[in-house]
Amino acid sequence: MPPILTVFERSPDRGRGLARDMRVRWALEEVGQRYDVRTVSFEAMKQAPHRARSPFGQIPTLDDGDLVLFESGAIVLHIAQRHAGLLPAGSDARSRAVMWMFAALNTVEPPIVEREAATWSERGKPWQAEHLAMLDARVRVRLDELSRHLADRDWLEREFSAGDLLMVTVLRRLEGSGLLEAGPSLPDYIARGEARPAYRRAFEAQRTLFESASPP
Amino acid sequence: MPPILTVFERSPDRGRGLARDMRVRWALEEVGQRYDVRTVSFEAMKQAPHRARSPFGQIPTLDDGDLVLFESGAIVLHIAQRHAGLLPAGSDARSRAVMWMFAALNTVEPPIVEREAATWSERGKPWQAEHLAMLDARVRVRLDELSRHLADRDWLEREFSAGDLLMVTVLRRLEGSGLLEAGPSLPDYIARGEARPAYRRAFEAQRTLFESASPP
Repeated sequence: MPPILTVFERSPDRGRGLARDMRVRWALEEVGQRYDVRTVSFEAMKQAPHRARSPFGQIPTLDDGDLVLFESGAIVLHIAQRHAGLLPAGSDARSRAVMWMFAALNTVEPPIVEREAATWSERGKPWQAEHLAMLDARVRVRLDELSRHLADRDWLEREFSAGDLLMVTVLRRLEGSGLLEAGPSLPDYIARGEARPAYRRAFEAQRTLFESASPP
Repeated sequence: MPPILTVFERSPDRGRGLARDMRVRWALEEVGQRYDVRTVSFEAMKQAPHRARSPFGQIPTLDDGDLVLFESGAIVLHIAQRHAGLLPAGSDARSRAVMWMFAALNTVEPPIVEREAATWSERGKPWQAEHLAMLDARVRVRLDELSRHLADRDWLEREFSAGDLLMVTVLRRLEGSGLLEAGPSLPDYIARGEARPAYRRAFEAQRTLFESASPP
């Protein structure tokens, strides 16, 4: 039985591949693992049957045999540890790759998500613009730091890893925001990720699902 | 050579054990691994020599032989994978424990850190109270969800793991905020973590360092 990935029935990003299942799809494509998809609506995602699998009411989840996992970072690491292709050989190099997974999700992503949340949760507040400027400044600090690290590198370490996979998906949330220019190395880095055949296959799969759920 | 942990020269929490080195100290104590400590000042933490080790200018870092790691979650996982005591036996159970590490750092911690940042970065803004109420509500959602999961459990899974270690340190940031009552199971859960001998040793070590750096 291939693993089963639970994803949005209709992704709120309208097929742009920004939902967190994209990370897992990409990881599964990198390692050449077929998978099935189960969809969940927004309403069902917050109800008891889904919460029994995902206590915070989120997607994605992965069923792999008897194991049920939530948290996209944990699912990507689980896949990376059971298949070749997402972590380097050598125990020290693996620890460095896993380090970048945590950096993507605990240092780079939080201010990006926070800024994104403020664009809608504070809509109409007279102080939204002032607050967004503060949040933008925090995002720019992280982009500048990351960009310096990537200035003379194609990937975060010597070769592409699950750390790059997560970092690219985190940075993609800023496409169209005008903030990525704070990190001059970052657009090319994202483009290198998006050019990978496994990325393209994952992107098309989620796009096709969105389009079939939303006829024109 | 024991591993070397880099920590704040003078922790801004005044010895309350809320800085992220506490997680690593606790993990090292749980597995019985001796370690040495190197201190770094706030100024040095943002300068080139430290940034060559930690591109985002953060503590902690860990030197373990030739390997240098940053990101507290990654360091705890590295320790957990090289020593017994922080991850269960069995590959599925290990994936579940690692899943909780990511949940602590990517789902529960970000809104807590965001709220904490707003208490100082928005000081004096006429809209601070309105915004803090919104942030408090988001934290309460996560605490309620986590508390329901813990209602009939001592730990996140069958036994204490690195997932609990990170979750307890994340929740401790809320002590004194009045928010923890949104999760009725959480105070006892935190207390179970704090009662562990390894936690006590780690706490005393960071407290002693703070006191020696800050004579009365």
